[in-house]
Amino acid sequence: MRKAEFMSKSIIVAISALEERHRQAIREAADRHGCTVRFFNTDAEALPFLADAEIVFGQSAALAKNAPALRWLCTPSAGVNQFMGDHVFASPDAVLTNSSGAYGVTIAEHIVMLTLEALRRQKEYSAIVARREWKRDLPVRSIRDSRITLLGTGDIGREAAIRLRAFGPACLRGVNRSGSNPGGLFDEVAKQENLAQVLPETDILIASLPGTAETFHMLDAERLALLPDGALIVNVGRGTVIDERALEPQLRSGRLCAALDVFEQEPLPQDSTLWDCPNLLITPHTAGNMTLAYTRDRIVAMFLEDLENYCAGKPLAHRVDLKRGY
Amino acid sequence: MRKAEFMSKSIIVAISALEERHRQAIREAADRHGCTVRFFNTDAEALPFLADAEIVFGQSAALAKNAPALRWLCTPSAGVNQFMGDHVFASPDAVLTNSSGAYGVTIAEHIVMLTLEALRRQKEYSAIVARREWKRDLPVRSIRDSRITLLGTGDIGREAAIRLRAFGPACLRGVNRSGSNPGGLFDEVAKQENLAQVLPETDILIASLPGTAETFHMLDAERLALLPDGALIVNVGRGTVIDERALEPQLRSGRLCAALDVFEQEPLPQDSTLWDCPNLLITPHTAGNMTLAYTRDRIVAMFLEDLENYCAGKPLAHRVDLKRGY
Repeated sequence: MRKAEFMSKSIIVAISALEERHRQAIREAADRHGCTVRFFNTDAEALPFLADAEIVFGQSAALAKNAPALRWLCTPSAGVNQFMGDHVFASPDAVLTNSSGAYGVTIAEHIVMLTLEALRRQKEYSAIVARREWKRDLPVRSIRDSRITLLGTGDIGREAAIRLRAFGPACLRGVNRSGSNPGGLFDEVAKQENLAQVLPETDILIASLPGTAETFHMLDAERLALLPDGALIVNVGRGTVIDERALEPQLRSGRLCAALDVFEQEPLPQDSTLWDCPNLLITPHTAGNMTLAYTRDRIVAMFLEDLENYCAGKPLAHRVDLKRGY
Repeated sequence: MRKAEFMSKSIIVAISALEERHRQAIREAADRHGCTVRFFNTDAEALPFLADAEIVFGQSAALAKNAPALRWLCTPSAGVNQFMGDHVFASPDAVLTNSSGAYGVTIAEHIVMLTLEALRRQKEYSAIVARREWKRDLPVRSIRDSRITLLGTGDIGREAAIRLRAFGPACLRGVNRSGSNPGGLFDEVAKQENLAQVLPETDILIASLPGTAETFHMLDAERLALLPDGALIVNVGRGTVIDERALEPQLRSGRLCAALDVFEQEPLPQDSTLWDCPNLLITPHTAGNMTLAYTRDRIVAMFLEDLENYCAGKPLAHRVDLKRGY
């Protein structure tokens, strides 16, 4: 990152979820560095002001496409699919940072909730309660003594591992590209290329992978067939990791069960057969959005950290490799 | 416990949830001690065989009332309300053991599930998903940085504390009669008489108390009023601990929210206004029944442990003080 040439850098912030205290913190940091900053609630409102924007803090590709002077775009999301591919950025010099690391806490809580809801038959019990019935004898299962595999050991996988460990699983395996064991949080970590060896010994499979060419349909018919009967799949990463057409018959037959927060197409189409698929719990991509104060605080803290770096001409801490996609 | 006088003790087991492997383990232990054992799925089936029963393993008061030669009744439940009061046991010599300690794991998982469901608005999201809508912007809250108070620090409170700790709460307080801190699992433990001092600093209140005269309406209008706005109450102990008439208006006004697995009257009456009370999540007393294999294994292991004690003339490890009620 070269040191910016102009004295007065223009910052555009287009994130509706920010609170006044966040805006105030950004304003103060901008003042300190002689930057101007403007806040907008929607991309549409921000668009007319992008011509000389050097820094953009927002999550839509339209911001990148309409900012010819852009040097740095920080997205408050963890996923960066919308920024991948050619011609997304009007400015050839622009670098991208993301907010991966802000979502681990909220997504890990979602993972534990979905896992327990699936194991404890909450979808069925919700229907029982809605009918004012007092039925309480459905067999349930436990995280305790279950063999758990976390596909993806980034911020989300690690925060989930910390929480799941406290439930006493039989084992907690990670799967990633390198086979490294971050923080020693996992009993063992397999390389992604050895996923097929891990699946037959997995009672609960938790996927938190980004949506890239490499992860596309990583859980296809062949891999899903390797899971033991009754296995539970939880997906909170990107929907493209699972071949939904291969998964659905396994859910309908009762061989597998799943809790999905993400889908190949979002919003999940009105006529999707997944909506009323048995043995499937659906949440509408609520695991990791900006609805938790802790997440908003982290997103702003990470942006401010890199604003310091940017203004000091240092490398940005949260830079994304657009070729890898994370 | 005096050593039993007769060589061939008669054991009656009336628990439908037992699996064949459990029956086999009990049969083997009985053989080893020269006991006879009969298994029944219902109390009604067992009744004609109670006349000379010395040991009963079952959970209904009818068993106690119809076994004049009874020396020991082991209930597979943790609660013993049905055995309290005069004239419950036909035999004046009978002692009671319970299976408190078998339910901590399953109830702790239920506690974490209900807590996350309430904080993450799952009841509302279930309704959204049922309408095939893709709405995802409801503000959510987190266990992280929440002030948690566990009212009751027995097996359930301790197992819950272990799991909740991993979510990074601001603090984890216990409340019990003695003020002792079992296993050092809590940041601090208040005596029950000081409950009023703890409530104003409680974001999440988790009650796992037995239903006794002492705990009756412990959470009454006055105490509930001490909780801060937005506090969440989770009750998995006995419903009589909460004055439901005092709680309901606080839920309807949105000042408090709750997740209740137990109620003052169970089954919850068809015409109860709680069924459609906002800010309330209901489960039909599913936290701690015998639907989890781990629980059944523990119940049988504890019974067999005390069968060894009984046959050796030793004190029973899981004996209940019928005056205290646990």
